[in-house]
Amino acid sequence: MASNPACLFCRIIKREIPSKVLFETEHSLAFLDIGPLSEGHTVVIPKHHAQFLHELPDAEMADLLPTAKKVALAIGCKDYNILQNNGRIAHQVVDHVHFHVIPKPNADEGLVMEWKTKETNGDKLEELRKRILKL
Amino acid sequence: MASNPACLFCRIIKREIPSKVLFETEHSLAFLDIGPLSEGHTVVIPKHHAQFLHELPDAEMADLLPTAKKVALAIGCKDYNILQNNGRIAHQVVDHVHFHVIPKPNADEGLVMEWKTKETNGDKLEELRKRILKL
Ligand SMILES: [Zn+2]
Ligand SMILES: [Zn+2]
Ligand SMILES: [Zn+2]
Ligand SMILES: [Zn+2]
Repeated sequence: MASNPACLFCRIIKREIPSKVLFETEHSLAFLDIGPLSEGHTVVIPKHHAQFLHELPDAEMADLLPTAKKVALAIGCKDYNILQNNGRIAHQVVDHVHFHVIPKPNADEGLVMEWKTKETNGDKLEELRKRILKL
Repeated sequence: MASNPACLFCRIIKREIPSKVLFETEHSLAFLDIGPLSEGHTVVIPKHHAQFLHELPDAEMADLLPTAKKVALAIGCKDYNILQNNGRIAHQVVDHVHFHVIPKPNADEGLVMEWKTKETNGDKLEELRKRILKL
């Protein structure tokens, strides 16, 4: 289990910094966000320190979604978003992988986003698929 | 493995509807979004049909984050968001659990969101924690 003594979330895991814990499992911790977008906004983290999702070993991911599900069921929210940000430009603020469970009680509270799709077509997507898969 | 013959994503899994597949594992499928927010925008779904994350059995979740990680590594994006929407008001459009992997190449492309935090404090969060956990 990688840990970073300078990391806020690693310190929360070790209880060096207090937090409002909802659930703890072998590989994960869930606690209330201190800057909530809506009531019940919770953060679910792996205990293993990694900055980005693509750096987190698969085995360390195992508990994350089951814990997020437990959180959603415990909060009892009907509508909600699960969000995990990677990199500063993508709104990552703490450099330890974390999933936000954000209840969406109405249009104004919770996660507010734009959905600006780009134009594409089947040929362009097939060309992109081949490029990504190096085919 | 639950399947719904009327569900778009269940039909994509069965190859009744074509899609640009990047990866397939025992419990998951990853394919390019046809309405991308940025180049490489990919959808990762469980093969098991469930409308909401909280309805998906834990065993059916096992492949989702490892597959999302594979997608991020294959696309090679430095910054990206992982987003899973539950319920119409939370922007869920297809009623089969799906995770968006959305590259964030710059401020305007990819997922654009507001982050309007609500005021709270330790006492209120502790009261909320007890309410959620029925303590
Ligand atoms: Zn570890
Ligand atoms: Zn950490
Ligand atoms: Zn199943
Ligand atoms: Zn389905």
